[in-house]
Amino acid sequence: MEAITIKDIAKALNLSTSTVSRALRNSYEINPETKRLVMEYAEKMNYRPNPIALSLKDSKSKSIGVIIPEIANHFFSQLINGIESIAYNLGYHVVIFQSHDSYEREVANTNYLVSRKVDGLLISLASLTTNLFHFQDLMEKGLPIVFLDRVPKEIETHKVVADNFDGSYRATVHLIESGRRRIAHVTSPIYLSITTERLAGYKKALEDFDIPFDESLVKYCIYGGKVVEENEAAMEELLNLPEPPDAFFTASDRLTTGCMAVLQKRHIKIPEEIAIVGFTNISVAELLNPPLTAVVQPAMEMGQQAVELLIRLIEHPQKTGDYEIRSLQTSLILRDSSVGSKVNIKVS
Amino acid sequence: MEAITIKDIAKALNLSTSTVSRALRNSYEINPETKRLVMEYAEKMNYRPNPIALSLKDSKSKSIGVIIPEIANHFFSQLINGIESIAYNLGYHVVIFQSHDSYEREVANTNYLVSRKVDGLLISLASLTTNLFHFQDLMEKGLPIVFLDRVPKEIETHKVVADNFDGSYRATVHLIESGRRRIAHVTSPIYLSITTERLAGYKKALEDFDIPFDESLVKYCIYGGKVVEENEAAMEELLNLPEPPDAFFTASDRLTTGCMAVLQKRHIKIPEEIAIVGFTNISVAELLNPPLTAVVQPAMEMGQQAVELLIRLIEHPQKTGDYEIRSLQTSLILRDSSVGSKVNIKVS
Repeated sequence: MEAITIKDIAKALNLSTSTVSRALRNSYEINPETKRLVMEYAEKMNYRPNPIALSLKDSKSKSIGVIIPEIANHFFSQLINGIESIAYNLGYHVVIFQSHDSYEREVANTNYLVSRKVDGLLISLASLTTNLFHFQDLMEKGLPIVFLDRVPKEIETHKVVADNFDGSYRATVHLIESGRRRIAHVTSPIYLSITTERLAGYKKALEDFDIPFDESLVKYCIYGGKVVEENEAAMEELLNLPEPPDAFFTASDRLTTGCMAVLQKRHIKIPEEIAIVGFTNISVAELLNPPLTAVVQPAMEMGQQAVELLIRLIEHPQKTGDYEIRSLQTSLILRDSSVGSKVNIKVS
Repeated sequence: MEAITIKDIAKALNLSTSTVSRALRNSYEINPETKRLVMEYAEKMNYRPNPIALSLKDSKSKSIGVIIPEIANHFFSQLINGIESIAYNLGYHVVIFQSHDSYEREVANTNYLVSRKVDGLLISLASLTTNLFHFQDLMEKGLPIVFLDRVPKEIETHKVVADNFDGSYRATVHLIESGRRRIAHVTSPIYLSITTERLAGYKKALEDFDIPFDESLVKYCIYGGKVVEENEAAMEELLNLPEPPDAFFTASDRLTTGCMAVLQKRHIKIPEEIAIVGFTNISVAELLNPPLTAVVQPAMEMGQQAVELLIRLIEHPQKTGDYEIRSLQTSLILRDSSVGSKVNIKVS
């Protein structure tokens, strides 16, 4: 007979797996009646916690695994510094892995970290990840996981994100108020949470100023700027539109600097001909030519809050309240790349 | 009776510990007479390999630990991408740690990685590391370690470095040939290998052009630019010299961008008043204002070569030839920050 899992119990009782899991751990969040129901059924069906789950529980390694898309990105390196600043003081090692935005690597990294018995995981999803089973499976086995920045809708746990909608909304409003009307949005793959949230902010701003949304002005770069050719092709298409953009709103470090490089190569004046606002934590924004207007995420703080939530899950699994989604405020820092000599155009 | 160690054998026979270690591993690099001597003495004294050494040998985890000072640095993130590009294809996991230039964290990272049974280590030393016992001890126990970039003189193993002397020499010659005579050198702590190598190149260039070396033009920043105040104080002192510099040659990403920020704040024109050349792999050098002349290290290739050497040590310990020190060529990329409108001054 195949062993019964938490999933089976959940299905049989018409409950969520996380409810069953918490009921079995005797969490105070689950009402006594549900607990009794779950435990009785589990006993009847001879449910035994998975041995991996047990080993995960029994051998605390005082280490946290972090899997991020890439470290050569100021946002992620600041995120990690935030994580380390808290973890180190609480006696946890921080083990860093890059997924390089590859689903296969993310799975391989996850399996490795689990085999090495980390106490919990902090994850920012790879852009090519669409299947979440590798995480769902571990959570079911009781491994604490907290997601940050690029988070999955489908998994219920703590999540820490920047307020992408608001950051994007304010950046777009700023461009509109500076007189721009054809604002291109060059962004990451459509299936990432950050992409849809930023796109929604951009659309809302256009709507609030009665500027019709034009699909041809939005470019999704599946490699997020890491493949120069992809970025250049997107720029090329935008610049060759019958009505080309008068502003770029770019969604990452590399998309932003890649975009500036293309404009420079083409001798297009920033901001006179085309303005740029980037969603970026690049440290040299001030030193660029021209200095770059940026939506800056509180990356350090995001890392700190995520690791605090994770360590709470690790150390007090029974005290876990409802899972939180924390959304932190971004800052819009105005610099020459978007403000300056562009003449305000009134739309009739 | 206390167990005898490789160190004891080395002392008794007046050999180096690495010779004894290799003799005990029956390495072909050690001549048969020495091997016989070592093995006989080891048997007589009832030498038993350390249990940690045995566990290190017996349980290959197919993983490599990398400890670098910080990931928020283009040089190091490219180095890691080089390491991963090779390791991943050979089936090794790459576990990344930051020492944050702290000796204590480097030791803690090392201990953690060893407790988790990595097969080998790639290390770029923390700037505050002066005691190397944590590495010497592990090497003696048979753990393969390869150093890269910031390497110790005292430990005999494979090392992969950039040709820092030559890179620095060419940068300084370039500044001299562009008419600069008061070239300040803002650099990392004096006890790092990269610092002394770069300083030597700088001095040799001055010497070859009969420019006297002026100690007051050299500033060692113990935090390597990570502490803005330190960088600013160094700049301040240099700019307030009775005879201030007409050029800056800076030794890292942060020292370079920090230096540019100070000059901008003071409205000093680059390169008209002061030229800058930076030892940096920063990806946006071209987009800075002005575009930055840079000594670029082959970071990707350095990472690739170092991990190849390490995997060779891991997989074929008996085939290890003499340890290599590979020194890879840097490139000097000329941009506006050092070339341009400065009038050539002839020195009488």
